[in-house]
Amino acid sequence: MTLLERIFGKSEDKSKSVAKDRLKLVLMHDRADIPAPMMEQMRQEIIAVIAKYVEINEADLKVDLERADTTVALVANIPIRRVRG
Amino acid sequence: MTLLERIFGKSEDKSKSVAKDRLKLVLMHDRADIPAPMMEQMRQEIIAVIAKYVEINEADLKVDLERADTTVALVANIPIRRVRG
Repeated sequence: MTLLERIFGKSEDKSKSVAKDRLKLVLMHDRADIPAPMMEQMRQEIIAVIAKYVEINEADLKVDLERADTTVALVANIPIRRVRG
Repeated sequence: MTLLERIFGKSEDKSKSVAKDRLKLVLMHDRADIPAPMMEQMRQEIIAVIAKYVEINEADLKVDLERADTTVALVANIPIRRVRG
């Protein structure tokens, strides 16, 4: 299973899983020399930006750090309660 | 070609393309009811967060908005000059 399939799940999975309103954020770095704590700090600040625009269901927020050879992918599954504004 | 392959390019493409140091940001929304201007605003603020951690080569920054049935994917290819700090 490629890194992408692991990140986004096979397309058939999508139809089976109950379509909840969510935003998916992926931050992928090819050369993997951004230290993990920095990626984590970036992630938190990015989620804070997103939270200004959509109401996030923090309890169900899921974040994974995936590695494949030189690629590091930080994947956040962000369930949305509603779009603000 | 699936939305993902369009976003990340086939894995063989990656080996052929000169491996430049870059960050890839994807913001994917399943229900596509976040208005495009709001996605654009979010993108700019997210890139501003990233720019605090890495020096971005603004001239080569590439952003695409991809649509496939109910999914909207905002994809930013962010060439990095160096990681700060």
